[in-house]
Amino acid sequence: MSSFDVAIVGGGIIGGSIAFQLAAEKLRVVILDRQQPGQEASRAAAGMLSPGPDSQEALPLVPLGIESLRLFPRFISEVEEVSGLSSGFVQEGTLQIFFGPDAESECDKMAHEYRDLGLGFENIPLDEARRLEKFLSPGAHAAALIPDEATVDPRLLTIAVLEAALRRGVEIRRDCAVTEVVRNGDRSNGVVAGGERIAAEFVVVAAGAYSGGIDWLAHYAPTHPVRGQMLALRPAYLKSSKVLRSEGGYLVPRSDGRIVAGSTLEDAGFNPQVTPSGIRKIIDAALNLIPELANAQILETWAGLRPGTPDNLPILGPTDIEGLLIATGHYRNGILLAPVTAKLLKQWILSEKVTMDTEAFSPSRFSARKLHTPAAKGASVIPGFR
Amino acid sequence: MSSFDVAIVGGGIIGGSIAFQLAAEKLRVVILDRQQPGQEASRAAAGMLSPGPDSQEALPLVPLGIESLRLFPRFISEVEEVSGLSSGFVQEGTLQIFFGPDAESECDKMAHEYRDLGLGFENIPLDEARRLEKFLSPGAHAAALIPDEATVDPRLLTIAVLEAALRRGVEIRRDCAVTEVVRNGDRSNGVVAGGERIAAEFVVVAAGAYSGGIDWLAHYAPTHPVRGQMLALRPAYLKSSKVLRSEGGYLVPRSDGRIVAGSTLEDAGFNPQVTPSGIRKIIDAALNLIPELANAQILETWAGLRPGTPDNLPILGPTDIEGLLIATGHYRNGILLAPVTAKLLKQWILSEKVTMDTEAFSPSRFSARKLHTPAAKGASVIPGFR
Repeated sequence: MSSFDVAIVGGGIIGGSIAFQLAAEKLRVVILDRQQPGQEASRAAAGMLSPGPDSQEALPLVPLGIESLRLFPRFISEVEEVSGLSSGFVQEGTLQIFFGPDAESECDKMAHEYRDLGLGFENIPLDEARRLEKFLSPGAHAAALIPDEATVDPRLLTIAVLEAALRRGVEIRRDCAVTEVVRNGDRSNGVVAGGERIAAEFVVVAAGAYSGGIDWLAHYAPTHPVRGQMLALRPAYLKSSKVLRSEGGYLVPRSDGRIVAGSTLEDAGFNPQVTPSGIRKIIDAALNLIPELANAQILETWAGLRPGTPDNLPILGPTDIEGLLIATGHYRNGILLAPVTAKLLKQWILSEKVTMDTEAFSPSRFSARKLHTPAAKGASVIPGFR
Repeated sequence: MSSFDVAIVGGGIIGGSIAFQLAAEKLRVVILDRQQPGQEASRAAAGMLSPGPDSQEALPLVPLGIESLRLFPRFISEVEEVSGLSSGFVQEGTLQIFFGPDAESECDKMAHEYRDLGLGFENIPLDEARRLEKFLSPGAHAAALIPDEATVDPRLLTIAVLEAALRRGVEIRRDCAVTEVVRNGDRSNGVVAGGERIAAEFVVVAAGAYSGGIDWLAHYAPTHPVRGQMLALRPAYLKSSKVLRSEGGYLVPRSDGRIVAGSTLEDAGFNPQVTPSGIRKIIDAALNLIPELANAQILETWAGLRPGTPDNLPILGPTDIEGLLIATGHYRNGILLAPVTAKLLKQWILSEKVTMDTEAFSPSRFSARKLHTPAAKGASVIPGFR
């Protein structure tokens, strides 16, 4: 029987980042992945590192996102140094574009929200926006620069993180689905994966949308898939290195000249297919931002399954089963939150002081709510969005 | 030096069909292809076998299309028998759908046009159309059944035709671009291909959009690429085996449950890429016909380069260079016209009586027009569209 300090269920950006961090503490770590690691949501993501809230329900996430973005440059340099691989990290900010008759007031409203949350946000004149992004639509009515936002290439980063974890001695088992989390009363002491019993002092569940389907884990990690479709374009012109974003969609430039356009939010089960309605929506939003993209080359279409949760906040931390920790449900923010998630999991596992307020993300919140407040759902327990 | 009776430049559906036909006459035939045969327009086509005119300029093609469709069942059975491969031939007719306030009068107009040309066309009530195609859009305003139209899977058919030609003794050379058509005064006696001189009593140019770029052939075969983008869908429901078509686009069912949706007509050079504007247009037309397809799976997107000509009619027949024949410029109709093109080329090469009126397709028409009627263009020399 194999034996480890920590068994991580799922080899995406979250599982890989936790493993990379724990291996630096000389823990013996194994990553167990049902297929080839990094092939699910991590591979599908756009890679925008945007701590600003995209909805009212995302507000509790903002401090986590800010902290994770702060950690990002050091995280990237460690990963790139250990792996010898590049991750495409670029910190050039985002141009937020507003359309329609209420564009200016929407821009002002977002400016207040961002500043109240401690996020940089600069209203800029449209001709300044056009100077920054030459082919910005003539239909744009207001613009802002969010200077601190950054991007990575999530495929490159995930590969780099897994390689870096390997080089620090992490064992990665592919095609090794976890079918059982072994419990001895109130203590977990390992898993069964690929038919083999694996002993581990700690089990960390980082299996994204698939977490809730493993054995009895739905009790702590009730995840469900939220499909996002994507499109990669090669334009005939050179896009600026800034993200371009509107309410309808976004364009994320890659350093090789490609543009990644997204996305949709769909409840479509475990079905990562692209559809006419999804691709049309993305094309509409992309051409609304840059009409010139009409004749770009479509290089690729794909879809991924984000790990949604009942309140669409992540599920992070220890459970009432000793040795069982959860790190999933990152929904739209798995890439951004990888460094802070890895840091928090390290603190919990090493019994260090936890440096963030993580109560809103507790794995026990769903079972507790079921017992005490059966009618409470998602947004109702979240502070109002200003 | 290799020596053949006939050297065919281009291994698409046209070149392959001619080779298949000539080999049955015991001629020694070689196909010369610049890459892997069958990878250009033949592979990109939807495979509708529709002899009805899609525009006024296509009117002279109608008799050719009718004859070729008549030849199709026997052509298919010969190809399938010799090759041992299937081509997906289905003759179940087309549902033509009309939208908007003028739907009924447009349908009546098309009915007259089709019947005057000797083509079957049945106006049918909308509930009959919905019986034939369950998910037909509620927005449809008029419908007709064109009973004789058929479809093939052009990829399967092209592979089958090339295999059948091979089995009849045709030599196929891939990655063997023709760089020179050898002339001795008013006589052609072969080509240079892949750096090798190949002697041939007859040279047949069937290189699609690339024909006009070979040596001095633009004089006889002034082809240019007309891009068509395509989409393959896998719907959640079972489509009927009929083609569904409107002014905006078409849906061609395949026997494996896929639906091929098309298309665009674009002047974009030798650039077979798919674009946001093209794919959006195809999605719009497809969902206009069957809204239910919004959540189908997009299996594939691709584009092909049709061989357009100055009047968008094919270029067929002998030239004033003895031994040089042209069989290209089939524009949107290469799959439909393959059998009749093969038959005509056989008649010319064997000096048999040519059984169709082919004057409108003569390879000398462009040089003649240049000399005598410099202002004449396309539609002006074509009989009016009723």
